[in-house]
This record gives sequence, structure tokens and C-alpha cells, in this order.
Amino acid sequence: MWHLYQFPLCPFSRKVRLLLGEKGIAYELISEYPWEKRPGFRDISQTGQTPAMRNSERDVAIADSNAICEYFEEVEPAKPLLVGSAEVRAETRRLIAWFDGRFYAEVGMPLLAEKMIKRLFYRQPPDASVLRGAMRATTEHMEMLGAALDHHRWLVGNAISMADLAAAAHLSVADYLGGIDWAGHDQVRDWYAALKSRPSFRPLLDERMGALMPPAHYGDVNF
Amino acid sequence: MWHLYQFPLCPFSRKVRLLLGEKGIAYELISEYPWEKRPGFRDISQTGQTPAMRNSERDVAIADSNAICEYFEEVEPAKPLLVGSAEVRAETRRLIAWFDGRFYAEVGMPLLAEKMIKRLFYRQPPDASVLRGAMRATTEHMEMLGAALDHHRWLVGNAISMADLAAAAHLSVADYLGGIDWAGHDQVRDWYAALKSRPSFRPLLDERMGALMPPAHYGDVNF
Repeated sequence: MWHLYQFPLCPFSRKVRLLLGEKGIAYELISEYPWEKRPGFRDISQTGQTPAMRNSERDVAIADSNAICEYFEEVEPAKPLLVGSAEVRAETRRLIAWFDGRFYAEVGMPLLAEKMIKRLFYRQPPDASVLRGAMRATTEHMEMLGAALDHHRWLVGNAISMADLAAAAHLSVADYLGGIDWAGHDQVRDWYAALKSRPSFRPLLDERMGALMPPAHYGDVNF
Repeated sequence: MWHLYQFPLCPFSRKVRLLLGEKGIAYELISEYPWEKRPGFRDISQTGQTPAMRNSERDVAIADSNAICEYFEEVEPAKPLLVGSAEVRAETRRLIAWFDGRFYAEVGMPLLAEKMIKRLFYRQPPDASVLRGAMRATTEHMEMLGAALDHHRWLVGNAISMADLAAAAHLSVADYLGGIDWAGHDQVRDWYAALKSRPSFRPLLDERMGALMPPAHYGDVNF
């Protein structure tokens, strides 16, 4: 059995969970909060970051969300999530890097720092100027997504891919933290609604991070 | 013909160049300095970051260093650089993410900011405390590399892989900027000397970034 070390609002862990869900791979969750710096976790994830996966029967541990996703794409190719030509797969990986890098730096990380870490652990109010910066950045990303969806149903073509899962994982964390204004982004909303209605997404939408509550529309498929 | 948009001290571009060199793929360099924010570059690289590659005859453009490396691994599999079992390939990708993420954040980026950007563009001296922090971080990375090389000749086994190229690309930029103290790291030094002596590495070692000169040992295979 695979175990996934993660916490509910880790966007990188959510990306892995969506992939495992789409592929129908069984796993159990283990709560891991990187900021607690639990000593034993470094044996599984040398960076101390989530997600990491471990299969104790087979003595395999894998850290880094992309290493995990590429691994399961290789060993469970039956339901492929890297699809199309080599050029389309390159575009898929570029979009994943966009969300893991730029979206996380500009939107996800500031929202997690201000709304999750400060609230739950320091009992401090968020810095309003940082939140405004994250909201401004969100607009650029929503427009980029809208432009990609002008051409086809999913981000890189007419089949769902890892790019959709990565984008939805990061968006879902920002949405939980009240960082997404959906008004005026109908195309992105329709695409995200289609993702939300997939069985792989349901467990994520039902989870809560401690005392932190998402906005009312967060779990709703028709939002 | 492929064109690679890069600048001499971009570690991510160096990783791609080593891969192209190892695979024997022909390409031409185009100088691109991301901090100049040349408008046309956004058409090739939406993030504005190097490296990006373009093949105008085939109307293909690929941005993001990992998307580029995985692409050429797929279309030119004859000289594989993702080798071994799925678990070994996962470890390869984890190490690449380590160097692209952690090493770059802790060592490469501060050195480039303090020693390249400040010196060449602002005519300012570097911040000594930032340089000390980067040097301290380097030690942890050298020890990690040494531990990996205890078990086999290359980072993930007895064949060279993308992990070696990624690590060497990032180390070479830090070494150019005087950020590596090789004393006491003989195993890492031997591994890096073997990489330096490969034909794929030579063009990188001969290049200079403007008026910025590397230390005397930088280009020497027997350093």
C-alpha cells in the first residue's frame, strides 16, 4: 500500500492526489505539516517538503511532486495523463511548471502564509497589502487559463492531462483561501466546474484545514 | 535548426546545453537576458525566463528547462539520460528538482544577484552577508552530493544521467562566481572533474559573462 505524506492545503500534494485518483491507484493519507520539521520526515523527503510517498512493502520512497507524477505515469500508463505528441507533452510540462513555480510564488504561497500560517499558528491578522498583491496576480493567471481554453476543452487539447490537474490543484487551494474572484471568467469557471465534478476531486473538496473554513461556493460544483 | 535562448550564467540553460551536447543535437545559441524584458521573448517563453528553444522550420517553441529536457529525452531516446528502473528515474527527477529548486534558491540565485547583476548592471559591491549565507548553504549541498557518490560513480547509478547534468550545471555557475570551496570534497571534485572533461562541457567552460571573470581553476579539468 502506498502512503502519501501531505496536509490538506498543500497544492503539490493535491496535484498528486488528483493524479492518483484519476489513475485509480489506492493510497492512504498521512498528515505531515512541513513547518513542524518532524525529524523522521527527512528520511522520506530530504527537502522536508510535502508531498512524499512511501510503499513500505516494496521499500520505495519518492519525494517531489513531479517525480511522483512522472513515476506513476510510467508505472501505470493505462490511463495516460501525459497525452498527445511530444510537443503537446512539452506544453503540458511547461504549464505544470507555470503553476508549480509562478502561480505558487505569486498566489498560493502568499495566501498560505497570510491566511493559513498566520491565522492558525500565530493568531495574527493577514497583511492586507500582500493579499491585494496575490489577488492582482490571480487575474493574470485567470486570463492565461481563459486564453488556453479558447482553443480546446482542456488546457492542452481535448483530453484531460496533468496540466489540468496541476492548475486545478493550485486554484483549489487559492479558492479555499478566498483568493479567486470568479466573476468575468466564465470559461475558466466551466472548466473548473468540470474538474470539481470528477470523483478524483471530491475527497479534496470535503476536507478542512483545522479551524479554517472555505467560502460557501468552494465545495459546490455549480458555483 | 534549433535555437536556444539563454545567457552564459543561466544554470537552467546550462542544464539544457549539457543534455543537447550529450545527445549530439545541433543548435545555435541566441543571447537573451531576461532582466532586459525584451518584448518579443514572451512569445517564446511566457514567463520571460531562460531557457527557451525554438525550431522555426517546424514552428515549435518550448519553454521551461525540464519540459525541454523531457522533450529531447522523448524524441531522441538513443542516448538515454533518464536511465534505470522507474524508481531510479524518480530519484533522478527528485535530484533535478533539488538543484533547480533548493540549490538555486540558496546558492545560485543569491550569487547571481550579488556578483553578476550588482556588479555588471548596478556597479555596486556585493552584500557580504548574503555571500556568506550562500557559501554556508553550499556545504550542505556538497555533503549531500558526496553521500550520493559513496554508492556509485554517478549520482543515481553507474551511468551518467540528467541528475548529473543538472547538478553540474548549477555547480558550474556557482563555481564561476567563486562560490564553491572544493577543499575537503574530493569525491565531489573527482565526479565534477569527470564531467568537466566531457566534450559537452567544454563550450560552457570557455564562455565568459561580460567583464566578469571566473577564478583560475574554473576552466581547468585538473583543478
